[in-house]
Amino acid sequence: MRPSGRAPDEMRAISIQPNFTRHAEGSVLIGFGETKVLVTASVEERVPPFLRGKGEGWVTAEYGMLPRATHTRGSREAAKGKQSGRTQEIQRLIGRSLRAVCDLKALGERQITIDCDVIQADGGTRTASISGAWVALRLAVDGLMQAGKLTADPISRQVAAVSCGIYEGTPVLDLDYPEDSAADADANFVLTSDGNIAEVQATAEGACYDEEALLRLLRLARIGCGEIFAAQLKAAGR
Amino acid sequence: MRPSGRAPDEMRAISIQPNFTRHAEGSVLIGFGETKVLVTASVEERVPPFLRGKGEGWVTAEYGMLPRATHTRGSREAAKGKQSGRTQEIQRLIGRSLRAVCDLKALGERQITIDCDVIQADGGTRTASISGAWVALRLAVDGLMQAGKLTADPISRQVAAVSCGIYEGTPVLDLDYPEDSAADADANFVLTSDGNIAEVQATAEGACYDEEALLRLLRLARIGCGEIFAAQLKAAGR
Amino acid sequence: MRPSGRAPDEMRAISIQPNFTRHAEGSVLIGFGETKVLVTASVEERVPPFLRGKGEGWVTAEYGMLPRATHTRGSREAAKGKQSGRTQEIQRLIGRSLRAVCDLKALGERQITIDCDVIQADGGTRTASISGAWVALRLAVDGLMQAGKLTADPISRQVAAVSCGIYEGTPVLDLDYPEDSAADADANFVLTSDGNIAEVQATAEGACYDEEALLRLLRLARIGCGEIFAAQLKAAGR
Amino acid sequence: MRPSGRAPDEMRAISIQPNFTRHAEGSVLIGFGETKVLVTASVEERVPPFLRGKGEGWVTAEYGMLPRATHTRGSREAAKGKQSGRTQEIQRLIGRSLRAVCDLKALGERQITIDCDVIQADGGTRTASISGAWVALRLAVDGLMQAGKLTADPISRQVAAVSCGIYEGTPVLDLDYPEDSAADADANFVLTSDGNIAEVQATAEGACYDEEALLRLLRLARIGCGEIFAAQLKAAGR
Amino acid sequence: MRPSGRAPDEMRAISIQPNFTRHAEGSVLIGFGETKVLVTASVEERVPPFLRGKGEGWVTAEYGMLPRATHTRGSREAAKGKQSGRTQEIQRLIGRSLRAVCDLKALGERQITIDCDVIQADGGTRTASISGAWVALRLAVDGLMQAGKLTADPISRQVAAVSCGIYEGTPVLDLDYPEDSAADADANFVLTSDGNIAEVQATAEGACYDEEALLRLLRLARIGCGEIFAAQLKAAGR
Amino acid sequence: MRPSGRAPDEMRAISIQPNFTRHAEGSVLIGFGETKVLVTASVEERVPPFLRGKGEGWVTAEYGMLPRATHTRGSREAAKGKQSGRTQEIQRLIGRSLRAVCDLKALGERQITIDCDVIQADGGTRTASISGAWVALRLAVDGLMQAGKLTADPISRQVAAVSCGIYEGTPVLDLDYPEDSAADADANFVLTSDGNIAEVQATAEGACYDEEALLRLLRLARIGCGEIFAAQLKAAGR
Repeated sequence: MRPSGRAPDEMRAISIQPNFTRHAEGSVLIGFGETKVLVTASVEERVPPFLRGKGEGWVTAEYGMLPRATHTRGSREAAKGKQSGRTQEIQRLIGRSLRAVCDLKALGERQITIDCDVIQADGGTRTASISGAWVALRLAVDGLMQAGKLTADPISRQVAAVSCGIYEGTPVLDLDYPEDSAADADANFVLTSDGNIAEVQATAEGACYDEEALLRLLRLARIGCGEIFAAQLKAAGR
Repeated sequence: MRPSGRAPDEMRAISIQPNFTRHAEGSVLIGFGETKVLVTASVEERVPPFLRGKGEGWVTAEYGMLPRATHTRGSREAAKGKQSGRTQEIQRLIGRSLRAVCDLKALGERQITIDCDVIQADGGTRTASISGAWVALRLAVDGLMQAGKLTADPISRQVAAVSCGIYEGTPVLDLDYPEDSAADADANFVLTSDGNIAEVQATAEGACYDEEALLRLLRLARIGCGEIFAAQLKAAGR
Repeated sequence: MRPSGRAPDEMRAISIQPNFTRHAEGSVLIGFGETKVLVTASVEERVPPFLRGKGEGWVTAEYGMLPRATHTRGSREAAKGKQSGRTQEIQRLIGRSLRAVCDLKALGERQITIDCDVIQADGGTRTASISGAWVALRLAVDGLMQAGKLTADPISRQVAAVSCGIYEGTPVLDLDYPEDSAADADANFVLTSDGNIAEVQATAEGACYDEEALLRLLRLARIGCGEIFAAQLKAAGR
Repeated sequence: MRPSGRAPDEMRAISIQPNFTRHAEGSVLIGFGETKVLVTASVEERVPPFLRGKGEGWVTAEYGMLPRATHTRGSREAAKGKQSGRTQEIQRLIGRSLRAVCDLKALGERQITIDCDVIQADGGTRTASISGAWVALRLAVDGLMQAGKLTADPISRQVAAVSCGIYEGTPVLDLDYPEDSAADADANFVLTSDGNIAEVQATAEGACYDEEALLRLLRLARIGCGEIFAAQLKAAGR
Repeated sequence: MRPSGRAPDEMRAISIQPNFTRHAEGSVLIGFGETKVLVTASVEERVPPFLRGKGEGWVTAEYGMLPRATHTRGSREAAKGKQSGRTQEIQRLIGRSLRAVCDLKALGERQITIDCDVIQADGGTRTASISGAWVALRLAVDGLMQAGKLTADPISRQVAAVSCGIYEGTPVLDLDYPEDSAADADANFVLTSDGNIAEVQATAEGACYDEEALLRLLRLARIGCGEIFAAQLKAAGR
Repeated sequence: MRPSGRAPDEMRAISIQPNFTRHAEGSVLIGFGETKVLVTASVEERVPPFLRGKGEGWVTAEYGMLPRATHTRGSREAAKGKQSGRTQEIQRLIGRSLRAVCDLKALGERQITIDCDVIQADGGTRTASISGAWVALRLAVDGLMQAGKLTADPISRQVAAVSCGIYEGTPVLDLDYPEDSAADADANFVLTSDGNIAEVQATAEGACYDEEALLRLLRLARIGCGEIFAAQLKAAGR
């Protein structure tokens, strides 16, 4: 029995509120249950030094957790003077996931920076971030297309992510915090809307897991991402 | 004529949404027009080293601006590895303003940390932060009192803040971003509900100003803070 | 009764020793009683990136306190690896105060950096810094004018600063350390020689203060700055 | 055809030289072909703060790349003043992988720190690090057991890692640098000697991959880890 | 011919002004010609962690250069966020030099921190720092002895330092800046008043030097330190 | 009697293994007994900003100690976020020593960076670093000459270093760790193959030393460097 009473293959309620803030070229407030992440996409007409003059663009991401997004207050990374390993790992994952569905040549020599700031955390902040980031990116690219700055759409398909894990012996979809902190294995799947895999990060926390378990988690992830893909399209007005 | 069409002594719409997040002991989303700040109050049963064993509490504040709260994206302070002078100046001001209305002995040996994170910026982020912080602090202290952890209320009165300035020769209340970036003088007033002044920071940006102007700005601030005091009480359920 | 025996409107002895060091384009050792600050003005034929190519100059300031300027040794900011919030707040104030009396266009595309290093502290280090900085800046600009590098004088008037506060219920001028650490309110006024205000920073430390008190402190500040303006002119040879 | 001429399921030569340095409680120089990593295990009779007094031990890892381990010199992280996101990601992975095969209670209140320093890089530095780390840990724990400091062996089984990827359409085992930089997908598998999975990190670099590909890569990883397990036992004298 | 017209074995004027600042337990302003260093000695009734409970004291030093001590402004180390290698090298040398003439057991469990801040630089700042530091330390220890806190004098003898070098082929004493920047070899000698050597740091800048040259420089250093020893005693009132 | 049983003027076994790693333009693993340092020389076709456009090259060095090179694990400088004063002092010394035997004009506008990473420490890591660095530099320059990129050899002669000290009253050559930690004086000599001195750093650790002792240590250093010069030539294939 899951603490939330959900069925093993049941996602939490997905909410995606587009245009949550007004300055960013794209923005959403995404919720996976009580996990809430504000995601913005910022377009800049410049690229990082390693891409200058190559006629290609770049999509990158930054991630942060507000100090009291969690049950007890964590220290502010800006005050500590550095980002934790966890933060860096997550923001690298978000950036890779988005680049997996973008044609950077089609984007032209500009950069889109995705900022994912966790307002409230209840498990799955990185997967909510990726899932929301696609919508923010979609909105920002739509704006570039409407402004005639792009000749072809650089986004080839959708990307979404969800965490699955083995909780008290049962594979379950979309771990919330009570499950996440007790799960034997915790796997984050980043899937694309054409049925492929962009990234798998599956970690044994207690007992190690076998191939069969990995596949069962992947199947749950397909169910969850299916729901997210639908919510993304709706939020993006497609 | 103000860009927003407001009268010189007219505040922007004030909105204060209590309990915006669920983990913090107190939290609000405060809006002064398009400026939106998420403020949380976190209670911890410990005090900083300089107060240990003195039977006194502490109230302190941290401030941050999400990278895309502004018109163009600013760099993330956690990624740069340090907080700007502006950030530190603001968070020190917020902490001082709250301590001016708190009896730290009555709080007992515990610390309340106020986190002010700007979700969207349109001028006045520090004054909205202070004004919202009082409500978050009030809610957190109410919780301590309901839990029987305090014998006397450590909050003696309300504190609120507003910025005023001289815009195209006219003293105006509650500067928004277009006014703030063009004003000749910019004054932040932190006032208490018993009619006193906790802090004045009045800076000439272009021409310097005279005593008469300072007094006129102070009078506008009294008008604005009156409105904020009312909104605070309503949000705090008093 | 003030600890020093001074009258409420009595400044400490002001000493300004010009050309205290030999390499800087302008330098003074300023003393407000036992507070001693070494101020240098350095001219560089370059401007910060945000001003390049705009035909305008820049005046900025840095502030430091020698570790044993104070009663007990403070840690060295260079060793700690960062400047405190207080340091940054002060150096930003010094820079703003000087820019309030400078025509940056008339300065041409060059930067003048003011370094204020506190040799000995007894209250009022920021106000002594501002007051001395004007003389160092004046000397440096005089040098540029004598060298024919400027066609018009970029300094429009004098600027000086003094702290006032409410000590044991009485408004007093030019707080020394024993007063500063016990005062109910502490206000720093930055005034210009044409009778205007460049900046007010008035903070309640204990009880908050009212409008009448603010005005009485401002009037004391006018008396103090009057004396400083005279000492500045003498030190600058004018 | 692989650049090295290897068959798709062929590992590079594995070399593990135990006791490469003399001060560490365990140390090896591990080579996967031209990739060479010096791994040491250091035993300390203390645990991190979060474990004090809990009667449990800790195993953690740090990772570094010598500046000229690579084709062109990279900057030294100690000189830059921070570890990259990549470094932190890798050292977190190494630590998790080892903890997956350790009973931290059986270790007692002591910490073993694994240092993995890449002497020469040719792809697969993180997988060589994990594979060598198990041997260094084994040697250090053997020392503790011989000294009578442990009553039960805290290491439950072996752990090893290898990278696989899709290179020019073909799944291949143990990517070297030319393959790694051109592969469409890059998957790191951390497997245990009882046939389970401790961690999978599978990333699409170009085209995304499907479930079938993931399984084929996993099967290659089983082949590679089988060879590594044998080499580990031999190096550990078992 | 030396730029200053001095004879090869002629020191610059040595000035040592004791009690230059009022808060430090010992302080001097030392001048070697135009090089001016403010040195303070601060006594603290605590020792660094590695000495706690050992009944021994510690003497350590920190060094800094005010940004405009030099011909052109250098950046402030506190603003850059780290001390340069040169700064650290110098402060380690000052600390070692003083400890060479101190009996740390006789000092008891307390620390004396020497701060050397260069007000104006014209070559020889580290040697002036060491030479002044002995006087500041002497004054601080005298205070401890007068207060009855020490039973035996922990300072066994004097220590002083001077730089010598080979300038245009001639060994000369006490290099000033024009000589220092052109010298072929630059040697700093730290000598004790009983005729011994505490430290030699002799560096070839252009051509390397031979043993004969090293000895000639050492003999010059003995002449210079003799003069400094006399000035130290006078400044310390002995 | 030395702990190792060596005669006072006896070096430890010197081993220099050229081309220890494959990517660097020059590399050696140098051993002075149990002290082992990996040294690489990296050629880059660029110079630091202060040399741009001057037609001159640069030789610089960086130094690091692997965390478990020592008896007890030291913390990793990359993790601490800064290099210690000791590290900076050593890497500055290595760079100066090499530049003393290089004609930077003959090198042309390119930089050679020497990385010295201590694999195992048993005293004398800086002197082994310098001695090995000359061979790595020699190999890198030989490569440039063979590639026709240099018209004249920029290396004028050999440079080597050794530490000597006074151990239990006797001057001894090439201190190992047990001697180093107990010696009264510790002197590092950097000598050139034409019989000159590039640098002396001689520090009293306990009792100060006299001129005679300095000379005796220098003579021992000549013996030791003679052996190193021979080993360098052999390793460099000359």
